[in-house]
Amino acid sequence: MAMNATTPIRVVLVGGSGYAGFEALRWLRRHPAAQVVGVFGPEGELGPMNEFYPLLTGQCDLDQERFDIDAVASRGADLAMLCVPHKVAMAYVPKLRKIGLKVIDWSADYRLNSREVYENWYCEHTDADRFAEAVYGLPEYFADDIAKADLVANPGCYPTCTSLAAAPILEAGLIEPTGIVVNAVSGVSGAGRRPNLALHFPETNESFKPYGVGGHRHQPEMEQVLSTVSGQTVDLLFQPHLCPMDRGMLCSIYADPTCEATPEKLLAALTEAYADKPFVRVRPGGAVNTKHVAGTNFCDVAATMNKGKVKLFSVLDNLLKGASTQAIQNMNLMFGLDETAGLY
Amino acid sequence: MAMNATTPIRVVLVGGSGYAGFEALRWLRRHPAAQVVGVFGPEGELGPMNEFYPLLTGQCDLDQERFDIDAVASRGADLAMLCVPHKVAMAYVPKLRKIGLKVIDWSADYRLNSREVYENWYCEHTDADRFAEAVYGLPEYFADDIAKADLVANPGCYPTCTSLAAAPILEAGLIEPTGIVVNAVSGVSGAGRRPNLALHFPETNESFKPYGVGGHRHQPEMEQVLSTVSGQTVDLLFQPHLCPMDRGMLCSIYADPTCEATPEKLLAALTEAYADKPFVRVRPGGAVNTKHVAGTNFCDVAATMNKGKVKLFSVLDNLLKGASTQAIQNMNLMFGLDETAGLY
Amino acid sequence: MAMNATTPIRVVLVGGSGYAGFEALRWLRRHPAAQVVGVFGPEGELGPMNEFYPLLTGQCDLDQERFDIDAVASRGADLAMLCVPHKVAMAYVPKLRKIGLKVIDWSADYRLNSREVYENWYCEHTDADRFAEAVYGLPEYFADDIAKADLVANPGCYPTCTSLAAAPILEAGLIEPTGIVVNAVSGVSGAGRRPNLALHFPETNESFKPYGVGGHRHQPEMEQVLSTVSGQTVDLLFQPHLCPMDRGMLCSIYADPTCEATPEKLLAALTEAYADKPFVRVRPGGAVNTKHVAGTNFCDVAATMNKGKVKLFSVLDNLLKGASTQAIQNMNLMFGLDETAGLY
Amino acid sequence: MAMNATTPIRVVLVGGSGYAGFEALRWLRRHPAAQVVGVFGPEGELGPMNEFYPLLTGQCDLDQERFDIDAVASRGADLAMLCVPHKVAMAYVPKLRKIGLKVIDWSADYRLNSREVYENWYCEHTDADRFAEAVYGLPEYFADDIAKADLVANPGCYPTCTSLAAAPILEAGLIEPTGIVVNAVSGVSGAGRRPNLALHFPETNESFKPYGVGGHRHQPEMEQVLSTVSGQTVDLLFQPHLCPMDRGMLCSIYADPTCEATPEKLLAALTEAYADKPFVRVRPGGAVNTKHVAGTNFCDVAATMNKGKVKLFSVLDNLLKGASTQAIQNMNLMFGLDETAGLY
Repeated sequence: MAMNATTPIRVVLVGGSGYAGFEALRWLRRHPAAQVVGVFGPEGELGPMNEFYPLLTGQCDLDQERFDIDAVASRGADLAMLCVPHKVAMAYVPKLRKIGLKVIDWSADYRLNSREVYENWYCEHTDADRFAEAVYGLPEYFADDIAKADLVANPGCYPTCTSLAAAPILEAGLIEPTGIVVNAVSGVSGAGRRPNLALHFPETNESFKPYGVGGHRHQPEMEQVLSTVSGQTVDLLFQPHLCPMDRGMLCSIYADPTCEATPEKLLAALTEAYADKPFVRVRPGGAVNTKHVAGTNFCDVAATMNKGKVKLFSVLDNLLKGASTQAIQNMNLMFGLDETAGLY
Repeated sequence: MAMNATTPIRVVLVGGSGYAGFEALRWLRRHPAAQVVGVFGPEGELGPMNEFYPLLTGQCDLDQERFDIDAVASRGADLAMLCVPHKVAMAYVPKLRKIGLKVIDWSADYRLNSREVYENWYCEHTDADRFAEAVYGLPEYFADDIAKADLVANPGCYPTCTSLAAAPILEAGLIEPTGIVVNAVSGVSGAGRRPNLALHFPETNESFKPYGVGGHRHQPEMEQVLSTVSGQTVDLLFQPHLCPMDRGMLCSIYADPTCEATPEKLLAALTEAYADKPFVRVRPGGAVNTKHVAGTNFCDVAATMNKGKVKLFSVLDNLLKGASTQAIQNMNLMFGLDETAGLY
Repeated sequence: MAMNATTPIRVVLVGGSGYAGFEALRWLRRHPAAQVVGVFGPEGELGPMNEFYPLLTGQCDLDQERFDIDAVASRGADLAMLCVPHKVAMAYVPKLRKIGLKVIDWSADYRLNSREVYENWYCEHTDADRFAEAVYGLPEYFADDIAKADLVANPGCYPTCTSLAAAPILEAGLIEPTGIVVNAVSGVSGAGRRPNLALHFPETNESFKPYGVGGHRHQPEMEQVLSTVSGQTVDLLFQPHLCPMDRGMLCSIYADPTCEATPEKLLAALTEAYADKPFVRVRPGGAVNTKHVAGTNFCDVAATMNKGKVKLFSVLDNLLKGASTQAIQNMNLMFGLDETAGLY
Repeated sequence: MAMNATTPIRVVLVGGSGYAGFEALRWLRRHPAAQVVGVFGPEGELGPMNEFYPLLTGQCDLDQERFDIDAVASRGADLAMLCVPHKVAMAYVPKLRKIGLKVIDWSADYRLNSREVYENWYCEHTDADRFAEAVYGLPEYFADDIAKADLVANPGCYPTCTSLAAAPILEAGLIEPTGIVVNAVSGVSGAGRRPNLALHFPETNESFKPYGVGGHRHQPEMEQVLSTVSGQTVDLLFQPHLCPMDRGMLCSIYADPTCEATPEKLLAALTEAYADKPFVRVRPGGAVNTKHVAGTNFCDVAATMNKGKVKLFSVLDNLLKGASTQAIQNMNLMFGLDETAGLY
């Protein structure tokens, strides 16, 4: 279903006032074959997008309007990008699908395939029957399914970052699937735009700390993706930290090697896995840096061995490959465009 | 009234949960002749100080208790440090004075000597009769009055920074008293600890902006101090900006020289004014930097001429010489201690 | 001389390893009608651009080659973007012009129209005869000349920022042309990529300071542009400061109003001047913020009155509208493209 | 050998121009029973300390003089604080000991007790016979030995941070001594004051990255301390990262529990170990944050279990508990002072 060059994909953005929605607007504006035809949000967060984000003045004249399925329907859209919190998403998705829109959902609501696991970590699920329909939107692994999907669950930032480093290594049988430690670090935009004391500038600046010490919702998502990809039950410990910078994410992953593992095979596993993947770059020697991917859709990965452990590193921009531009990459696949359209 | 070495000054801190109150606690703890005997605050901000500021764990076991004049009275204090917002201060000061405490008030309520000016910029004043009693606590200029005062109005951070640079130059008749521009920059702690979107880390980080473009309450305070010190009516334009750093303040001041002015005389005016002032340092060549004063009670000043204008620079730590340690410097003077006690 | 859609402008970049060169590469890569056909630099800074800037891996496979006019000539280029220091530029420009390339020079070598002023602030000029040929590349004011030029002097970041705020106000006769104060602030990338102690992270972070206190080379450039535009001799004092952020620039400008000035007329002067200029946005109320222009080619401007002075504010991204994307805007004009091509 | 209150400890500082030397000067100035009587450094880094660090103006009038053992001897010092790089230290220590000074060496030269391990990671050792004389200066574990020592090897910042979290847990037999992962993060001051591209502000700011991916010299030091304390061979993997902030360090440590381990026992092991240690604070729930220890001699530690692993966290100020104030804590012990003297 390749798009005719003269008929852009018509996109409605639901939830434009968060940082990821903002980035989606900026990138879609540059996209050669997509057009945002409406922005919708909740009561209390309505109005011109360029008042939420004065950077958009002169670039985007859209208002965030109150979400209403009839208003959405009136736009003649092909696709809804759903940048709303979990629970809200599961209320909107059935309506959006009913009026015939393809949906890319950025929440966690359709990422897990077990209702029980979902309800353990989040809340009651009112649309779990749709799990089978949803495709997990990690393009490097599920491009074929994404191309045919009507509902794509855009992955979490941490699961994307972790999976792109660990999946090829697990697939190649070079690390044990259990006892994996994922030590992760995120820039502050990952915590959202709602002010609170912990994110108040004088508290966050010049400060580094762990959070989610008791457990984090992205852990089961990571385990599910890695288990799916590698065909074995993967069990890992995920520990995130907050870093005083706007954007960027690093996962430092420690695992026990299998007897097959050598540094060369680790590197080869990454190199082969991503030979034809335009947005994953392998960095020999572990030379990853969040600044090398900031503002881009790239994920850089590395693998090495030290002291009897395998060490994997991966970096991405949490708002882009970790959210907005990954969604556009999924959109490109869903609509038969080149995977890289609008993403450089 | 020199203190007996074995009898420390007993201090109650009213308003301990803001950044300036926190710094006061830290510095008073190290003070050789003062002791904090109580911390009081408003309903809704009560509890252990080391929960507000975990840095204090093991150093300060005080609770912030609900402000109640009888509870305050029970502590046998000599001095109240009042770190509360304007309007609250004018409600507390009469009570604190009535039970015999000396008071250092950090709000604006007793800084101005004109009720009309105060009410123009702030709100109705319910204790304006006490203006005559209050001494403006800029130790470099009013040390003798401070030594005899029962009520000291601790200056604003911007007025301190501006005055220390401009006062000697005005006194020496080297700049015209009108048409002065004060372009000022503050670190974010100066905006307080209450979270809001403008101070949310991802909004403030990597961002520089003016604020108070229509006028700022510190302007009349600056004009009053400089007029008092120089014996002429000083008129200035004050424009503050917000800088993505925790603490520090710079004033860049531009004024028209009188025919007397030369670069040498400017430097001499500063050097002479501060020859015996332990906390003001003159920086020839304008080499001031907020980092050279961060974490100290110093104010660094400089003066030069360029393109027919006099340029003055001054830097200080907005939470210290701009608030907390300046209050301790005032306390030292009020209680006959060495001005520098506890301040290095 | 509109370009044929199928024949992109062939650009050589001379000096790709600085921050501005890097940005030029990134933006030209996205440009719909331009193509970088070579990158040249000095001995000692040669090699793959994606080793200088690992962010470019997978996006740019060009090497920075040793500058050699024959090598340059072999590329069949239409345009040289010259991102080299002053003095180097005046050595390269004659050679580049001789082999028929149009040139956009980012240094100061062809910005001033007085050899004497140039030599006062910089060094001896060996190609001053070419001054008459060079057009000052501020597109909002000199678009017609730029369209016909073979040699464009890309403006300095501070002069661009200052001029876009002050020029319309001077043209409208709303401020006096003398006694103007430009208090400016720049992010650290403006100081270049060569490491030195003053720009070492622990020295610069959490630090704000003035620099160039004795005078800065951008001052005569500002005066020349503003004098040219307004038809009167403009005299100003320029004082820059360094701010702990990567990028962004703010000019806070203070001037004496003429008797004509009102806040409404100030706003109107800006609004009218930029009604059809795609990259200058007027911000009523002074609500400018470097973060609103970071990563864009926009300059935001504002004007207001306070305490008998006119206050002007302008912000831009020092590496983009202050350097790289302004150069592309000039390129667009020189080659008959839409001014905004490749710049959103 | 308790000091007479009227006879302060006379300290010479060798290597005052680095960040740790600077902090030592600041803190010793406030110390009630110590006095810096000389600062010495290498040719090329001589002159007034307040020119290296303008913050010291008015607080420290000492010059850094060329290191010369006779000049040092002339000061009648009791103690040399040696803040010089490894290899330089082993050249100075014999001389300083020979003239009768006690020495606290901040380099790695006397930390390890195996010449072979030292030479593996550093360089040839010319004074290895002195290993037996040197005491490892981690006061929480070796206070009795430190009190009697003439030569104290001040620990590395990472080993201090790691050991204070892991030692009690290993001693209590709650984790396996092998397969431990230490994922560590440091502020940039830890990398020293010599400018280089990787630490240039625009490269480091808004950037997070691993370094020392192939191995780091602090790893054998950590293993040695933890093995000594716990009486078993400890084997760990250490991976440091660089964080865009001035100071602060976090270690996130992952280990396999023994069958004895429970969350309660982990907490109890820390609480008991540090019950009477003034500078280690236990943070239940893992609520550590570098900002809670910045500017102090505290180390905050925490322990928990998650997903079958033990997680330990520790934070300290890399320049203080990780270097300068830990040295002062050692000095206090060596000279019979209260361990906390001058350290709050």
